[in-house]
Amino acid sequence: MPPTATLLVSCPDQPGLVAKFANFIYANGGNIIHADQHTDFSAGLFLTRIEWQLDGFNLPKDIIGAAFGAIAQPLNAQWQLHFSDEVPRIALWVSKQDHCLLDLMWRQQAGELRAEIPLILSNHEKLGAIAQQFNIDFHHIPITPDTKPQQEAQQLQLLQDYNISLVVLAKYMQVLSADFIQQFPTVINIHHSFLPAFAGANPYQRAYERGVKIIGATAHYVTQDLDQGPIIEQDVVRVSHRDQVPDLIRKGKDLERMVLARAVRLHLHNRVLVYGNRTVVFA
Amino acid sequence: MPPTATLLVSCPDQPGLVAKFANFIYANGGNIIHADQHTDFSAGLFLTRIEWQLDGFNLPKDIIGAAFGAIAQPLNAQWQLHFSDEVPRIALWVSKQDHCLLDLMWRQQAGELRAEIPLILSNHEKLGAIAQQFNIDFHHIPITPDTKPQQEAQQLQLLQDYNISLVVLAKYMQVLSADFIQQFPTVINIHHSFLPAFAGANPYQRAYERGVKIIGATAHYVTQDLDQGPIIEQDVVRVSHRDQVPDLIRKGKDLERMVLARAVRLHLHNRVLVYGNRTVVFA
Amino acid sequence: MPPTATLLVSCPDQPGLVAKFANFIYANGGNIIHADQHTDFSAGLFLTRIEWQLDGFNLPKDIIGAAFGAIAQPLNAQWQLHFSDEVPRIALWVSKQDHCLLDLMWRQQAGELRAEIPLILSNHEKLGAIAQQFNIDFHHIPITPDTKPQQEAQQLQLLQDYNISLVVLAKYMQVLSADFIQQFPTVINIHHSFLPAFAGANPYQRAYERGVKIIGATAHYVTQDLDQGPIIEQDVVRVSHRDQVPDLIRKGKDLERMVLARAVRLHLHNRVLVYGNRTVVFA
Amino acid sequence: MPPTATLLVSCPDQPGLVAKFANFIYANGGNIIHADQHTDFSAGLFLTRIEWQLDGFNLPKDIIGAAFGAIAQPLNAQWQLHFSDEVPRIALWVSKQDHCLLDLMWRQQAGELRAEIPLILSNHEKLGAIAQQFNIDFHHIPITPDTKPQQEAQQLQLLQDYNISLVVLAKYMQVLSADFIQQFPTVINIHHSFLPAFAGANPYQRAYERGVKIIGATAHYVTQDLDQGPIIEQDVVRVSHRDQVPDLIRKGKDLERMVLARAVRLHLHNRVLVYGNRTVVFA
Repeated sequence: MPPTATLLVSCPDQPGLVAKFANFIYANGGNIIHADQHTDFSAGLFLTRIEWQLDGFNLPKDIIGAAFGAIAQPLNAQWQLHFSDEVPRIALWVSKQDHCLLDLMWRQQAGELRAEIPLILSNHEKLGAIAQQFNIDFHHIPITPDTKPQQEAQQLQLLQDYNISLVVLAKYMQVLSADFIQQFPTVINIHHSFLPAFAGANPYQRAYERGVKIIGATAHYVTQDLDQGPIIEQDVVRVSHRDQVPDLIRKGKDLERMVLARAVRLHLHNRVLVYGNRTVVFA
Repeated sequence: MPPTATLLVSCPDQPGLVAKFANFIYANGGNIIHADQHTDFSAGLFLTRIEWQLDGFNLPKDIIGAAFGAIAQPLNAQWQLHFSDEVPRIALWVSKQDHCLLDLMWRQQAGELRAEIPLILSNHEKLGAIAQQFNIDFHHIPITPDTKPQQEAQQLQLLQDYNISLVVLAKYMQVLSADFIQQFPTVINIHHSFLPAFAGANPYQRAYERGVKIIGATAHYVTQDLDQGPIIEQDVVRVSHRDQVPDLIRKGKDLERMVLARAVRLHLHNRVLVYGNRTVVFA
Repeated sequence: MPPTATLLVSCPDQPGLVAKFANFIYANGGNIIHADQHTDFSAGLFLTRIEWQLDGFNLPKDIIGAAFGAIAQPLNAQWQLHFSDEVPRIALWVSKQDHCLLDLMWRQQAGELRAEIPLILSNHEKLGAIAQQFNIDFHHIPITPDTKPQQEAQQLQLLQDYNISLVVLAKYMQVLSADFIQQFPTVINIHHSFLPAFAGANPYQRAYERGVKIIGATAHYVTQDLDQGPIIEQDVVRVSHRDQVPDLIRKGKDLERMVLARAVRLHLHNRVLVYGNRTVVFA
Repeated sequence: MPPTATLLVSCPDQPGLVAKFANFIYANGGNIIHADQHTDFSAGLFLTRIEWQLDGFNLPKDIIGAAFGAIAQPLNAQWQLHFSDEVPRIALWVSKQDHCLLDLMWRQQAGELRAEIPLILSNHEKLGAIAQQFNIDFHHIPITPDTKPQQEAQQLQLLQDYNISLVVLAKYMQVLSADFIQQFPTVINIHHSFLPAFAGANPYQRAYERGVKIIGATAHYVTQDLDQGPIIEQDVVRVSHRDQVPDLIRKGKDLERMVLARAVRLHLHNRVLVYGNRTVVFA
C-alpha cells in the first residue's frame, strides 16, 4: 500500500462541508481513496473521515496540517491528521491472563495491526516470560492503594520514554485514576461483559446468576467513570444452562480477544471518532 | 405426529434417577422419543424432560399422573405432566403495538404454535380490529392507577372463564401487580432490551444514549420484580452510529417478535423448566 | 423527513470525483445529509451515493438530471437520480406461501417501506384472500411450460399498466425467462439458502442431507442465470441434529422474511448499487 | 473434576433403550452426570451419550467394556467407551499458516483441550520454530505427487509411534489419500468456507467473486471425498463490499481458529457421534 494521509474531522454542521474538504484534497493533487461522513442532526454535528494517497499530493507532509487548519479554524472544526507511514507505538498492559496479550502479539506479527509494540506493563510478574519471548521490554509495576499515585507517575513516565500513543488494557485488572486518564487519555479497555450489563467486577459470575442466554464483551475508550467510556466494538456468544461460570469464562475469553483486537485495529486505522460519549466507526 | 406425554421433573440429585424414570416409561410399554437432563451440581438438583409416545402405553392418561406421583413423592420431586393432544389455551395481552400480536397470530395459523388463542386483552382499543379479523374475542380493559386492582380482578376472571393456561404479554405496556402474578403465575413477557441492560422504561432511547453497538430483546417469565424474572430466550442485532432511536425501534421490533415467538414455542412444547431464577431450556 | 434527492453514480476512477460531485450539490445550495463512496481498485471503478435536501436547492427537480448529466457525461459515469417524495410502486409476486407476503404488507403499513403496493401477482389462487384483505389488486396468472411466454407477456403488461418499478418475488416458485428479465430487469428474489450453497430446488432438504450446522437465506437481484444474480443481503441461523426438514423450513421462513424485507428496504432507499455481479450496499 | 466414563452408542431404535443403558450404570453403582439422546426416526436409529462418575462405580475400568458389550451385542449397537483420565494424544498437521496451530497450542496450555500434543507434522519447514518453542517434536515430510504414497506410509508410522488417536489438520494444505483415511480414519479438518459453498481450492477468492455478504468456516471429519465429510461445527462472519480478498482471508482466519478449536474440543469431550454423513453433537 502506498502511503496515505487521513483526516478525522468533526464540526458544527453547515452546507458545503463535503465540498470544502474534498476540494482541499483535490486542489492539491490528492486522490481520495476513502471518504465517509456522518451527520448527527440532534447534535448538529458533522463528522467525516477522508483518506487520500500522498503520492502526487502537492503539499509536503509537514505543511498539510497547517494548510488544513486554515480551513478548519473558521468552521470551528476539531480534527486529527494521521499518516499511514508513521507507525504508532502502543503499550500493552496486562495482569495475569495471557489470552489477549498473545492474540494481539500474534496479530501484530502477522501484519494485522499497523503498530509497533515496544512496551508491556504489568502489575504482576507472571507474563514477563511472554514479553521476553517476543523480545519486548517488560516493566513490572505492582499497585497497592498506597503506592498507586507514585506508580502511575512511573507509568506515565514510561509512556513518555517509549513515545507511546495508545495504551491497550489487555486484561489489566486495575482501575486507572482520573488523573492518569487526564494526562494520557488514549486508552482502550476490554470489559468482559455486554456493557452496560454487568459493569464492574465479576461479570461472568453475575451473568451466570442472572441466567442470561447470551454473554458479551465490550471494547471501549477509558474515561474517568468505570466502564462508562465510549464503546468501540461489542460482540456476543450464546450460552445455555449447561454453561457454568468456568464455561462462561472460557467462551468469554474468545470474545474478549476478538473484540479487543477489532477495536484496536479500528483505532489504529483511524476509523474511530469520539464525540460526547459515543463513537462513530467508519468501518 | 402421534400423541405423546411429557414429564418435566426437578428433584434433589441422587444416583439412579435416569434409570428410575426411564423404567417407569419402559415398564408401562412406552417408547421414549426425547429424553434430556441437566444436573446443577452447585444446587444439588437434577432436572429432566422425558417425552414418550402414548400409543402402546399401558397406563390410561388419567392414571399416569398418580402412577408417576408414587415414584416422585419419595424423591421430593416437583413435576409437571403434559399431553400433546391437550392443546393449551393462551391469552395475548397487547397495548398499541401490533407487531408481536400479528406475528404470533400468523404463527398460530401456520401451525407453528400448538395452542388455541381464544382471547386478546388490551388496555387500549386500537388493536381490536386485528382481533376481529382473526375472529378472536377482544376485551378492552383500560388501566389507571386507581382502577388497577378491580381491573386485574376482571382480567383474572377472564383468564378463568376462557380456561387460559398461559398469558403472553405481546407488548403490553403495563406492569402486573405482585398479587396478580401470585394468582396467575404463568406469564411470558418480551422486554425490548438485552436484559439486564436497560431494564425498565425506554430501553431504546437509553441504548442510543449509551452508544451501544448491539441491541437485544429478552423473553422471560414475569415475576414480582420488574424485568427480573427467569430468562427464556434472548437475541441481538448489530447497530451503528447511523442508527437513530427510530432505527433502533424498527430493528428491535424484528428482534422482539422473533424472541417472543421462540420463547412461547419453547414453553408450549414443554421445553422450559424454571428453578430459582433460572431456566433450563431442553431445546 | 423533508424531501431529498439521491444520486447513485459509478464511473471510472480518477482524482477529484468526490469534489466534483460535492461541488455540484453545494454550488446549487444543497445540504448533503449522506455521502458514501467506494473505490474498487481492481475494477478501476468509483461508486458513490449522495443524498441531499431539496429544500433550498436552487435547481428545480426536473432540471437536476440534465444538470448532473452534463457533469457525468465526460466522466463516462452511469447514474441514477431518485427523489424521496416520489414513492416507487412495487408488485409482490407469490405462489402458495404467505409468510413473506404478510411480512412485507405489514412493514409497508407500518411505514417501514417507502413504497406503494398496488399489485399482487400469483400463479396460484390461494393468497388472493390476503390481497383482498389488504385491498390490493390480485391477478392470478397460472404458468405451464406451454403458456409461459404468453403469461409473461401478460405479466409485463400488468407491470406497465400499474407503473411498477420493482418486482419482489416473495416466494414465487417459478423461474422468470431470460426474455422477461431483459424487459424488466429490476426484480428482487429471496432464495431459501445461503447462496451459493444449495442453489436450485429443495435447498432445505439438501441442507438436511448434507448435515450443515447453519442454514441461510439470500436476497438477490434476478438475472438470467438462476440463483446467480448480485447478492443484496444474506443471513443465517444455527440448526442442530434435532432439526428435521420441517424444522429447517420453519426456521428458514423467519430468515426469508427478514432477509427479503431488509433487501427491499435497502433497494427502496436507493442504497444498493450493482456493478458486475456484485453489489455495493451503502448501509 | 473426578474421573468419568462416557459411552457413545448408536443402535436400531426400540423401546426400553434409555432404561437398559441407565440401568446398567445404576445397577453398578454409577452416578450419571450427563445423558442425552437423539432418535432419527427416518433412519430408525437411536443415538445416545451417557457420562457417569467412576468413583463408586463397582466395575473396574478394564471390565466395563466387556460388561456393556454383553448388553450392546443383542441390540446390534455400535459403541465407544472413553475415560476422562485417559488423555488422548493428538497430532497437529500444518503447512505454512500458523494461526490455527498457535491457537490450539494456547488452548492446550490453558487447559481448554483435554489432550496431549506430542507431534506436529508439516509438509513445509516453516513452522518448525513454533514446535520448538512449545517443545514438541516436529517432523518435516514434504509431499510431491510422486512421493505421496511413501510419505503417507511414514506419516502413518509416526502416528503409530506416537500413539496418536486424533489428527487435526490445522491448515494442512494437502489432500489425504483414500488409502490413508482408511487406515487412520479419525481426522478433523478445517475448511475455509461455509460448506458446501466453495468446496475445493481458493474459497475466499471465489467468495469475493460471487459477492457474498457472509463468509464461513467449517470443521468436519475427513472422508475420501474432498470437503464432503460429516460436519462438526460451522460459523460465519459478515463481510461487505469494502472487504477485498485479503480482508476475507484475515476475517476468515479468526473464524477458522474458533471453529476448529470448538470442533476439536467437542471431539475430545466425546460429544460427537457420526452416522451416515451426519454428526450428532451432544453439546
